[in-house]
Amino acid sequence: MQRIVLHEVGPRDGLQVEKAIVPTGQKEAWIRGLLAAGIDLVQAGSFVHPEKIPQMADSDALIRGLVDSGVAPGRLSGLVLNEKGLDRALASGVGMVCMGVSASDTHSRKNTGMGTDEATVRIVQAARKAVEAGREVQVSVQSAFGCGFEGPVPAERVLSIVRAYTEAGLTHISLADTAGHAWPEQVERLYAAVAKAAPEADLACHFHDTYGTGMANVYAALRTGVTSFDSSFAGLGGCPFTKVAAGNVATEDLVHAFQREGRRTDIDLAQLIVVARSVAAFFGREMPGRVQKTGPVASKPAPVEAGR
Amino acid sequence: MQRIVLHEVGPRDGLQVEKAIVPTGQKEAWIRGLLAAGIDLVQAGSFVHPEKIPQMADSDALIRGLVDSGVAPGRLSGLVLNEKGLDRALASGVGMVCMGVSASDTHSRKNTGMGTDEATVRIVQAARKAVEAGREVQVSVQSAFGCGFEGPVPAERVLSIVRAYTEAGLTHISLADTAGHAWPEQVERLYAAVAKAAPEADLACHFHDTYGTGMANVYAALRTGVTSFDSSFAGLGGCPFTKVAAGNVATEDLVHAFQREGRRTDIDLAQLIVVARSVAAFFGREMPGRVQKTGPVASKPAPVEAGR
Repeated sequence: MQRIVLHEVGPRDGLQVEKAIVPTGQKEAWIRGLLAAGIDLVQAGSFVHPEKIPQMADSDALIRGLVDSGVAPGRLSGLVLNEKGLDRALASGVGMVCMGVSASDTHSRKNTGMGTDEATVRIVQAARKAVEAGREVQVSVQSAFGCGFEGPVPAERVLSIVRAYTEAGLTHISLADTAGHAWPEQVERLYAAVAKAAPEADLACHFHDTYGTGMANVYAALRTGVTSFDSSFAGLGGCPFTKVAAGNVATEDLVHAFQREGRRTDIDLAQLIVVARSVAAFFGREMPGRVQKTGPVASKPAPVEAGR
Repeated sequence: MQRIVLHEVGPRDGLQVEKAIVPTGQKEAWIRGLLAAGIDLVQAGSFVHPEKIPQMADSDALIRGLVDSGVAPGRLSGLVLNEKGLDRALASGVGMVCMGVSASDTHSRKNTGMGTDEATVRIVQAARKAVEAGREVQVSVQSAFGCGFEGPVPAERVLSIVRAYTEAGLTHISLADTAGHAWPEQVERLYAAVAKAAPEADLACHFHDTYGTGMANVYAALRTGVTSFDSSFAGLGGCPFTKVAAGNVATEDLVHAFQREGRRTDIDLAQLIVVARSVAAFFGREMPGRVQKTGPVASKPAPVEAGR
C-alpha cells in the first residue's frame, strides 16, 4: 500500500476566508490537536501582507511559538506568495514552505500582477532559495483543473509549470483545484501526464468540494499514485477571492474513508473529530464535514428499527 | 463510453423521511420536471402500508395520474415491499417495480419480520410475478456494503442473494448502500465479485452520502461497469429507520460531474437545478446538493478578484 501524507490546510485555507479573526491561542490549540491526532503536517498560516489578509497576520508568531515549544518544524508548513513572505517564513522556523503559480494567466495576473510565465520564474527562484536555506519546499500549480475566470485550463499550461519545477530540482509538486472544477477522469489524466513529465516527483493534491466531487477526486488522485493529500478539518474554508469556492475535502471524512481500507489507521480519528467539532462550535454554524456530525461507522449506535 | 441510466429516487427515498406530507400535486410537478430534464426513470413512490409511511400513501394515485396523463410507464418506478404492495404496483400502471432483500439478517428481520433467506424466497416469487405481468423489475441487495446493526456485511451474503436473483432470471440487480457505509475500494471489489457471479446482469448502484463518500462510490461503481445510478434531487433524504443515514448522492451533482466528461449531455442540467431548488425552497432548508447552490461551472460568473 502506498505511503500517504496527510497535510491539514484548514488553519490557512479555511481560516483565511473567515470574517472572524481567530485568536492565536485558539489556532494553536487546534493545530496541536490535529498534530496530536497524528496528522503529518499542518499548514499553520500564510506569509501574505497582513493588510491583505488580516486573518493570517499572526502566522509568524504562531509558527514561532509552536516551534519554540517543541513542535518539530517539519510538521508545520506555511504558504509563501513572494520573496518578502519567504524571508518571514524562514525567520519563523517553519519546516515546509509552500508556494505556487497559477496555470491560468488571468488568475495569476489578478493574484500577483504577473502572468504565469513571469510568476513561474519568480516562484522558482524563491523556492530554490528556500531549499538552500534547508527547508522542505512544496511547489504547486494553482487552477490546475480549471479557472473561475478562464474556464478550462489546458493541461499543457500545467505541464509547462511542472517542467520548470523539476528542472529546478523541485520535486514536491502539488496540483491545486483552486475553484473546485476538477472531476475524477480529468484528475486521473492530468496526474498521469504530470507523472510522465516528472517521474521523480512526489505528487500532492488539493481539492475544493465546490461541486461535490472533492472526495471522488481524492480517490482518482490516490489511484494515480499521488502520495500527499491536502484537506481541511470540518471541511472549513473556501477561497477568499474566488468567492464561490467551497472548502477543501474534510480531513476527518478523508481519514475515515482511508481507514475503512486499512490506510493510516495510526491516526486517532476520535481526536480529529473532537478538533473538527471544536471549529464548528467556534464559528457556530454547520460545517460541511460529515463524520464530525455522524461519528465514525464503528461507533455508531444501532438505531431501534430498520428500513431500506 | 458505457450506457448510463439515471434513476431519480428522491420522490421516494427522500420524501418518505420528511415530516411534512407533500401534496400529490407538488410531487407530480417535481416528477414532471425531472422527466422533462431528461432523467430516464423516476421512483415516484412506495407501495408500503400507508400507516407505516403516510408520506407514501398517495403513491397509487400519483403514478396512476402520471400514466393516465401520458407519461410512459417505463419512466416511472415504484418500491414494493411485499405481495400486497406488488398488487397495488401492478394496478397503478407503474413500468418498473423495485424490490429488495437485506443482506443483513438483523436488518431484514427488523424490516420484514423474516431473515434474509426467507425474505429472498418471498421477494424472488414476487419479482417473478411482476415479470410475468410484463413489468420491468429491479431487484436489490440492501445493506450490501455494511449495516447499522451488524456492521460489516460479508460479500458472500450479498453474492448469495445475487445468485438467487439470477437463477430466477432477474437481471436488473442493484446494490444498495442503505446506511452509507461503503467506500470506493470496497465498491470496486464487491461489484467485480457480483459481475463475476452474474455476468449477464445489468448492475445498478444506490449510495447514501452519510460519511462523505457517496460521489467517490459512484465513480468506483462506474469504473466497474455499473450502468444505472440512483440519486436524489438536491440530495434530499435519508433512510427513515436507520436514522443517521444521509440522503442519496444529489442528482444534479451527479449529472454535472458526468457532463464534465461528456456523459449524458442530453440531460438539461439547468432544468434539473430548477427542480432541485424548488424542493429546497419547499422545505425551507439548505439541502446537501452542491450544484443547486453554486450553479454549474460553465455559468458561474467570474468574481472580481483572484486568489489561491
